Amino acid sequence: MTQPRFKPVEEQLAYLKKGVAEIIPEPELTAKLEKSLKTGKPLRVYLGVDPTAPDIHLGHTVVLRKLKHFQDLGHTAIFLIGDFSAMIGDPTGQSETRPPLTREQVDANSKTYLAQVFKILDKEKTEVRYNSEWLNKMSAEDVVRLCSHYRLARMLEREDFHSRLDKGQPISVHELLYPLLTAIDAVKLQSDVELGATEQKFNLLVHRDIQREYGLPGQAILTMPILVGLDGQRKMSKSLGNYVGITEAPGEIFGKIMSIPDELMWSYYELVTDRTPQEIAALKQEVANGKLHPRDAKMKLATQIVDDFNAPSGEPFDLKTNISVTIGTNTAAEFNRVYRDRQAPSDIPENYIGSEPGKMRLSRALVRLGATGSRAEAERLIKQGAVEIDSGVIADPTFEFDLSVPRKYLIKVGKKKHFYLIVQE
Amino acid sequence: MTQPRFKPVEEQLAYLKKGVAEIIPEPELTAKLEKSLKTGKPLRVYLGVDPTAPDIHLGHTVVLRKLKHFQDLGHTAIFLIGDFSAMIGDPTGQSETRPPLTREQVDANSKTYLAQVFKILDKEKTEVRYNSEWLNKMSAEDVVRLCSHYRLARMLEREDFHSRLDKGQPISVHELLYPLLTAIDAVKLQSDVELGATEQKFNLLVHRDIQREYGLPGQAILTMPILVGLDGQRKMSKSLGNYVGITEAPGEIFGKIMSIPDELMWSYYELVTDRTPQEIAALKQEVANGKLHPRDAKMKLATQIVDDFNAPSGEPFDLKTNISVTIGTNTAAEFNRVYRDRQAPSDIPENYIGSEPGKMRLSRALVRLGATGSRAEAERLIKQGAVEIDSGVIADPTFEFDLSVPRKYLIKVGKKKHFYLIVQE
Repeated sequence: MTQPRFKPVEEQLAYLKKGVAEIIPEPELTAKLEKSLKTGKPLRVYLGVDPTAPDIHLGHTVVLRKLKHFQDLGHTAIFLIGDFSAMIGDPTGQSETRPPLTREQVDANSKTYLAQVFKILDKEKTEVRYNSEWLNKMSAEDVVRLCSHYRLARMLEREDFHSRLDKGQPISVHELLYPLLTAIDAVKLQSDVELGATEQKFNLLVHRDIQREYGLPGQAILTMPILVGLDGQRKMSKSLGNYVGITEAPGEIFGKIMSIPDELMWSYYELVTDRTPQEIAALKQEVANGKLHPRDAKMKLATQIVDDFNAPSGEPFDLKTNISVTIGTNTAAEFNRVYRDRQAPSDIPENYIGSEPGKMRLSRALVRLGATGSRAEAERLIKQGAVEIDSGVIADPTFEFDLSVPRKYLIKVGKKKHFYLIVQE
Repeated sequence: MTQPRFKPVEEQLAYLKKGVAEIIPEPELTAKLEKSLKTGKPLRVYLGVDPTAPDIHLGHTVVLRKLKHFQDLGHTAIFLIGDFSAMIGDPTGQSETRPPLTREQVDANSKTYLAQVFKILDKEKTEVRYNSEWLNKMSAEDVVRLCSHYRLARMLEREDFHSRLDKGQPISVHELLYPLLTAIDAVKLQSDVELGATEQKFNLLVHRDIQREYGLPGQAILTMPILVGLDGQRKMSKSLGNYVGITEAPGEIFGKIMSIPDELMWSYYELVTDRTPQEIAALKQEVANGKLHPRDAKMKLATQIVDDFNAPSGEPFDLKTNISVTIGTNTAAEFNRVYRDRQAPSDIPENYIGSEPGKMRLSRALVRLGATGSRAEAERLIKQGAVEIDSGVIADPTFEFDLSVPRKYLIKVGKKKHFYLIVQE
């Protein structure tokens, strides 16, 4: 094996510090990078994630992308699935005690999680571990000895515990075990650096302390800020509905990114793309100068994000222009066609009906097309004026198609759903 | 197997309540006794003891004796050795975190402990268990699930935790695990009643709570007061030196009991003998009336305690009086001879020296007899007037025995040590 070549420490640091909330302690990270450069030995950098839900969204990718940056620089990226710790339930940021997940839930989530993670990390270069590997083997005695290394008073300094205790909200004793048991991950992985969101800071510090109690050099800690959701107000989260799922269809992702407030796009550029701080500053300058319309800067962002989460398009070149295209650029073109140029999308499903004497109610056709779940729902939408045929609103719920005449109808339901109904000869 | 016959509940309760500090909740204990009487099924009553030291003293026997009372009444006495929990270290009453004991220390202590316990409990009828039986099998996951059943806030209500936190004294997180892990003992033993000292009350209540969380009826709790030590002031404890070890020589035990303040003997009668409340009240009355000298009442107590901790004497009858005698009564007689009548004890070791021309310094003889560790110590004691030969103080450190004349010398060193030095022909 040849030793990986590392870039100069200053250059690595500049890339790694992009978007970072805090590095604890920064001189130690610098020293570790210097040692790695000297010895040619990559740093062991890990991110632990509890698969508490089946999907990840753009908010989760912020810290995952920082792990990618270490990977890009030649360091060892370790993606740790907290399949054991997910059963405890991380108390971080929780305002109440949650019931632990079952093993089955955790296993199912782990599978879908990993597929999504490799949209960002390089699968070939990533060390994937599960903390059940060592935590399942741990005995009650091991837990006791582990807990003897940490003071209760320090645990209670933790803000979320403190505020819950003060408010008389319940905390279960098992929540105290969370940072201590996950510290064993850091011990077993012999990590040099651990990444996490800002709200994980307390846990990461406990991990560092316990590593030292177990005779290891303490890891450096690097925290990333929380991504603001599409509403521009609150933390991106599934329960708030202000999120972008990374497995969503390209058109969905594109549209959602285009919906964020202009000002928010700069933090998205910083936290969810690999653009360098220089590139981002240049773009910002162009917008400020009026050289670039904010909408176009946002389209670049949306294009980039769609491309990041999708394998390369099957058509690498636009046949007319001979310019390289990606799913992102295709999606951008489609977005322009539909939303800017008010044209029908290019990939409208076609539904055929054989020609016959007689008629068909519009509401029945909508159910048949899968546009609505029931005729009642279809009729309600028609009355609301939400249904168009060939760009004309049909507000009459008794409207009928004449099936005796072959013809192609473009039906639009709501803002986004398009269908062709084709009466064949 | 025939069903054990139980005494009426009222009668059982009267015996069980003797000396008790608290019964939680008393109606439940009554109900359990009633059910036991009806079904003929004995109650499962346990006492858990961590073998943190190799010996037990009279203070430990208070709650052990209460377990005996249940055994006397036909219930199942379970003596639980906390060989696992001793490694955690019970934080009860501790003003600081103690390092956990090693497995080796715990095993060694368990052995000596048990031999002493059977001076009080009936070995044949006692169920002896070790909590390593189930706690060694417990996984980290089991510990997490256990801890999810208990609230941190309730744990912090505990007085010793509270006061240590308030004073800024350290508490290790593992100390919180103590009452929870030992609660599994109560779950596994399916106990109806648990006994403990008053300071154990918090732990015992946690055990009861966890039994209910695990779907069992909660045990009743019975706490016993702390025994005051020989000084009449502080808790009996080895470190304070105010204790009676139950393996000490009968004469030692007797003398120590005789040294307690008169007033204290009534709580000793209550807590470390099986005398009924009626018997004790009657004795107290006799002393108050002047019919019984307090010294004699205390001798009865000392005799009883010596007998309790010693197998029956080899001479069950005094040959002259044909009256049944015990080690206790023999010890009492010896005590009277030495301390009241100022006579030499009856079991003085005899040391022989062959007659020869010449002399031997007293100080050298004392070393030879094992009375002192060195000649310097012997000479110091002689100068202090602490050495007598045949009831005459010899204060001259140059005193010599004449070895040419066969003779028997009675040598007394300090208040208690007696030796015969016999110059043989």
